Amino acid sequence: MSQNKLSVTILGSSAALPANHRNPTSQLLKSDQSYYLIDCGEGTQSQLRRFHLKMQRIKVVFISHLHGDHYFGLLGMLNSMHLLGRTASIHIVCPSDLKEIIEVQLQAGGGRMQFQIEYSFTDRVNDDRTLVYEDDQLQVDAFRLKHRIPCTGFVFNQKEKPRSYNAAEGAKHNISIKDIPNIKLGQDYVNADGLVIPNKQLTLEPPSPKSYAFCTDTLPLDNTVEQVKGVDCLYHESTFSQVETKRALATYHSTTIEAAQIAKKAGVGKLVLGHYSARYGDLSILLDEAKSVFDKSILAIEGEEINI
Amino acid sequence: MSQNKLSVTILGSSAALPANHRNPTSQLLKSDQSYYLIDCGEGTQSQLRRFHLKMQRIKVVFISHLHGDHYFGLLGMLNSMHLLGRTASIHIVCPSDLKEIIEVQLQAGGGRMQFQIEYSFTDRVNDDRTLVYEDDQLQVDAFRLKHRIPCTGFVFNQKEKPRSYNAAEGAKHNISIKDIPNIKLGQDYVNADGLVIPNKQLTLEPPSPKSYAFCTDTLPLDNTVEQVKGVDCLYHESTFSQVETKRALATYHSTTIEAAQIAKKAGVGKLVLGHYSARYGDLSILLDEAKSVFDKSILAIEGEEINI
Repeated sequence: MSQNKLSVTILGSSAALPANHRNPTSQLLKSDQSYYLIDCGEGTQSQLRRFHLKMQRIKVVFISHLHGDHYFGLLGMLNSMHLLGRTASIHIVCPSDLKEIIEVQLQAGGGRMQFQIEYSFTDRVNDDRTLVYEDDQLQVDAFRLKHRIPCTGFVFNQKEKPRSYNAAEGAKHNISIKDIPNIKLGQDYVNADGLVIPNKQLTLEPPSPKSYAFCTDTLPLDNTVEQVKGVDCLYHESTFSQVETKRALATYHSTTIEAAQIAKKAGVGKLVLGHYSARYGDLSILLDEAKSVFDKSILAIEGEEINI
Repeated sequence: MSQNKLSVTILGSSAALPANHRNPTSQLLKSDQSYYLIDCGEGTQSQLRRFHLKMQRIKVVFISHLHGDHYFGLLGMLNSMHLLGRTASIHIVCPSDLKEIIEVQLQAGGGRMQFQIEYSFTDRVNDDRTLVYEDDQLQVDAFRLKHRIPCTGFVFNQKEKPRSYNAAEGAKHNISIKDIPNIKLGQDYVNADGLVIPNKQLTLEPPSPKSYAFCTDTLPLDNTVEQVKGVDCLYHESTFSQVETKRALATYHSTTIEAAQIAKKAGVGKLVLGHYSARYGDLSILLDEAKSVFDKSILAIEGEEINI
């Protein structure tokens, strides 16, 4: 049967100032065997090592915005990928200024990197979802968030898998191995007596594709509700408790309650909180607040893998 | 009595590829109450926090060269200094390309930083020692090393402290408090009977100023012997065991034996080994090799403070 597993492992859950043994933002999204990194704060490569996640399997990196706590670990990770012998290209979806930041540092360091970096830029992303990346696993849309500097949210949509061959049903009709590929391609089967057995009968429904939305750093936005409507899992920054609502507004961040209201209005499957201000050692107050609005709220905890 | 304590705390001891729970290069040099950071690999701010060293007390950062494992932690540290409310300027002694690297990232991040960054550039440093920084505590000279890209070694020389007042001797001569400042300034004392008591008799010899040399990344050089002659403590990279002498040469690094030979020829007080290749989990082989040439060799171990 086709697998269509989607999960996200939290590598960093801290706001800009790392504290309480929490790292700045980074998450590893896995769709079946493909790895995608979302944001890459300082220390991300160490977190990958710590949680036994293979850095070289990352094929795409998505960078939400150019505050350092979301990308200062990128150059170090690329450097280690090089030193570990990577030759496969890597794709970076990011604001275009990041290309210059990468290049000026590669040049200063002697410019050696034996793999290619490909870019997709998010500069023109606006309020509506725009496709910014696609491969055999995922379609990734971006839309604009509202922070001090340009910032994008991402929605990762798994592609529908083909129907898989139902071996038990096939045996009933004495289907031989050589006919299976055509059935997998969607053809009906015609047996020796000329009887047509419909493809639907010989194949299994694929697991439903899953979706994940990643929204940080941002003020709470009505538009976010529209863009993430119905996703299976939403990560929405919740830098502050509702006690700090004014501070959240002043710093272009969101509170737990605001994140939970977006999750509720958008009817998402679950909400993951994160980007915690350094002032919160104990995070239970943040979780309790979010749950008071949206029960299916959970905390981003470093090292934990969330199944979507 | 005047203090003249010089020490260095190891924050990172790894070569370019972080491994074995070792961080990339960084060291905190303390001269009395003044803090100087030497190199700033990724994760340095976390290491400072881990070892309870106050980041905001760092007044100068010295960057040897622009390979990422020696500076990728700098922007994150500067960012945290800003977020923690720093207003005191910071001085960076570095290759001039680092200024552009810093500025392009500050600009991309919105350019807010409420403290000044002052620079001294090492681009014109050559084989002879050149003064690159000076304050009330230290004179810092730089000289050229030999690596893939321009790289400088540093020699940190404490300044001689003034002689301190000898209270016991002063009491013998009934010296009043109001006369002490002049004695501290070096004046002789004339008592009520017109008898001259020489300043040397009323003051104590200051502790001898100490010196520390930092040499990484580099091939072993005859010139290094000249430039670090007689320092109290020499840090010299020893990326490889002597078994890897060819590899060290090919990658512009040094072996333990080569570092120890430099220490021996230069007659330094002690040698600190570091910048260990990821291949060495257990470091005892590196220490044993160095000691076979120069007995006063020690390992750089993260978190350890070495008194100079």
